[in-house]
Amino acid sequence: MKNYTSINDISDINDWIAEAKELKANPLQNIELGKNKTLGLLFFNSSLRTRLSTQKAALNLGMEPIVMNVSGDAWGIEFEDGTVMNGSTAEHIKEAAAVVSQYCDVIAVRAFPSLTDKQKDESEQILSAFVKHASVPIISMESATGHPLQGLTDAITISENSNKKKVKVVLSWAPHIKPLPHAVANSFTQAMQKMDVEFVIANPIGYNLNKEITKDTPIYHNQEEAFKNADFVYAKNWSSYESYGEILDVDDNWTITKDKIGDAKFMHCLPVRRNVVVEDAVLDSENSLVITQANNRTYAAQLVLKKILENV
Amino acid sequence: MKNYTSINDISDINDWIAEAKELKANPLQNIELGKNKTLGLLFFNSSLRTRLSTQKAALNLGMEPIVMNVSGDAWGIEFEDGTVMNGSTAEHIKEAAAVVSQYCDVIAVRAFPSLTDKQKDESEQILSAFVKHASVPIISMESATGHPLQGLTDAITISENSNKKKVKVVLSWAPHIKPLPHAVANSFTQAMQKMDVEFVIANPIGYNLNKEITKDTPIYHNQEEAFKNADFVYAKNWSSYESYGEILDVDDNWTITKDKIGDAKFMHCLPVRRNVVVEDAVLDSENSLVITQANNRTYAAQLVLKKILENV
Amino acid sequence: MKNYTSINDISDINDWIAEAKELKANPLQNIELGKNKTLGLLFFNSSLRTRLSTQKAALNLGMEPIVMNVSGDAWGIEFEDGTVMNGSTAEHIKEAAAVVSQYCDVIAVRAFPSLTDKQKDESEQILSAFVKHASVPIISMESATGHPLQGLTDAITISENSNKKKVKVVLSWAPHIKPLPHAVANSFTQAMQKMDVEFVIANPIGYNLNKEITKDTPIYHNQEEAFKNADFVYAKNWSSYESYGEILDVDDNWTITKDKIGDAKFMHCLPVRRNVVVEDAVLDSENSLVITQANNRTYAAQLVLKKILENV
Repeated sequence: MKNYTSINDISDINDWIAEAKELKANPLQNIELGKNKTLGLLFFNSSLRTRLSTQKAALNLGMEPIVMNVSGDAWGIEFEDGTVMNGSTAEHIKEAAAVVSQYCDVIAVRAFPSLTDKQKDESEQILSAFVKHASVPIISMESATGHPLQGLTDAITISENSNKKKVKVVLSWAPHIKPLPHAVANSFTQAMQKMDVEFVIANPIGYNLNKEITKDTPIYHNQEEAFKNADFVYAKNWSSYESYGEILDVDDNWTITKDKIGDAKFMHCLPVRRNVVVEDAVLDSENSLVITQANNRTYAAQLVLKKILENV
Repeated sequence: MKNYTSINDISDINDWIAEAKELKANPLQNIELGKNKTLGLLFFNSSLRTRLSTQKAALNLGMEPIVMNVSGDAWGIEFEDGTVMNGSTAEHIKEAAAVVSQYCDVIAVRAFPSLTDKQKDESEQILSAFVKHASVPIISMESATGHPLQGLTDAITISENSNKKKVKVVLSWAPHIKPLPHAVANSFTQAMQKMDVEFVIANPIGYNLNKEITKDTPIYHNQEEAFKNADFVYAKNWSSYESYGEILDVDDNWTITKDKIGDAKFMHCLPVRRNVVVEDAVLDSENSLVITQANNRTYAAQLVLKKILENV
Repeated sequence: MKNYTSINDISDINDWIAEAKELKANPLQNIELGKNKTLGLLFFNSSLRTRLSTQKAALNLGMEPIVMNVSGDAWGIEFEDGTVMNGSTAEHIKEAAAVVSQYCDVIAVRAFPSLTDKQKDESEQILSAFVKHASVPIISMESATGHPLQGLTDAITISENSNKKKVKVVLSWAPHIKPLPHAVANSFTQAMQKMDVEFVIANPIGYNLNKEITKDTPIYHNQEEAFKNADFVYAKNWSSYESYGEILDVDDNWTITKDKIGDAKFMHCLPVRRNVVVEDAVLDSENSLVITQANNRTYAAQLVLKKILENV
């Protein structure tokens, strides 16, 4: 594997999960693998847990993480070819990506969508440009359309917490006061499609995710129906994909409650707005896996880094 | 010791001072103790010397420091229980503290007071919440009411520079153009009360510190009287505690001068406004210990980290 | 060597280039030299490649880099002696430099010019104050009038890419939309004057650099004439030195083109505005050395750090 920019880069998800569990059991087993190698963490958008977990993963492999907080405005990167750069952009991505490649053995990039220009967001301008112009491997730390480190994390967490052969997993849309990206929901969907689970999505009318991602995954517009016999309920808000980036009026109350999910395990990528996305009684119960998910972010990142380092 | 959030966490200050001196004499003696462990430094307020000295202390113990600059506004942490989080807060402290605990073996937190709401400041909302909700040890890097790393530093510095059995130490209020917190003065007072020194405080009327901190420490409103036979003069500005957070009109000139302190050693936690808090002639004299204090910040932090690491 | 603040600090440039090439061939040969030592990187102005390359250089020597982004405004450093600091400055450089020296074994400083006050810029207020008041070695990461790490990089790059005994090197002014400093041009000029090359400068009338830097280096106002038989063309914009900090009206088109430079190697310190400073055809050709220069930044910084560490 050269780059890790999508759940599609996972060759065999069961093998990967098994390997991640081994890393978790003994996190320092590959401490020599990344010695004297640097991981550049390039944030076009802010981050807390992604930054910390990826730094921790790098340290567990003996790598030196170097964090760079760059706002697109401050750096002013040009992406178009042939432009006369006499405006607001000060450096072309060709140079930017090649230069960072001189100092970092692996580059991890975070770049969120605009949520206003669907076509531009789906082109993954920043991430794709790094893949094209960098001379070292690229890892997505959440891009416009995917968050594959989170998706891998969630697959590991579900596997760890499954106590029967084939579990039922529901991804449920939940309310939020701001328009949010589709990245986490997309990558979670793709990860579940690769696993041997019964996977369904519940969301209000108008909130269907990109059909190219959901494919033939069943979509319910009735949350109660979707939750029947669920073993895992994964809550996440996203803005409308059809009415791109908009927040629509929703009739029912989609907040996740203890009553609704019963004994199902609860998952969320965090940060989570309590009593908006999910009520306290769920988060504070033993069925909440959110902190375990946060912990598993380290081992997902460590697994990806390990596979990349073994390949360079 | 699990946490270090107050001078009261020091079991025996003389033992601690002796151990800090040993660390200073041979700073790398415990370089294996923190190996493959991370120290998260969480700054809700900006920092230069606290950050540098604590990073240096962590490195001397083989730990990996990870700095996070978070403004309360940007992160938007919710502290109240049961709130419907549909406003400006985006993550509850329960999740925030638990999540950071997944990636950091020890968490150090800096969070200043508002100086407008005494009750809220004294509740130490941020620091207490981390102590309560984090699963790893917490160190204060200055909170609303205390700066125990500075207080320990000052105790070490006084011990190092005492040439007689029982020295006289004066904490003197000094002028400043902005309303400043009481944290440094409080922790210094608590540290001196634990040491075998003659300790008095000099401050203008209206500037008495919290009585629960000063206890039976003598307070002079006449600086000259307080300075008589002083071996150490520690200057610090603080805003009024009674008229909480206010700057009061003061009759006398409280700037520290060479004339006033004579041969006493001069101390200040820095940064210091020259010729406002203290005149050049004092800072530039051989009796100034301010750079030694800055240096000892490293060993105070290193001692605290060592004691915590030995306990985990 | 104690400090590295100017190309003049290079004793013998040919020896230095030879040593840098050895480091590049085996970057980890001195990995023990900087062990348990810290490099403080103090940025009064923002940085990407300088920060990354200097961090990488430090890591290659086993040092721990500590990055501090300080805006002059935020820190509010006082430089004047004897001032009553009751205004916007909160810490005197005497304390600031001495304090940072307690935590860092070497301090690297970046501080750009105002481009409005020539005399103040040429006094190198910030850099000189650190040299004077710090107790540890100081490295310039670009100051008001020089960028000696870049100049050393460029000397190494030219040496590596010279295929004949005495090459001709041209430093050419090129267009830009903003007024830029003279630092890169100055240090490049000084580096070339120390090497055994034929060195000339091409710039429009009104754009001559400081005569004390250019000395007897030939200056052409006709770019075509200057480029005749050039082996290396180094492009850089700078604002007027005579009409200090201004952008002047220029008659000719000074953009570097393939037609103009023919088979000469092209150099630029980056970031570069494409099709303003230089056309795509040059940057995308095999004669462009800009990425090699970026790479050599690491070894220039590493050489300087090595020489300083060997001396402390």
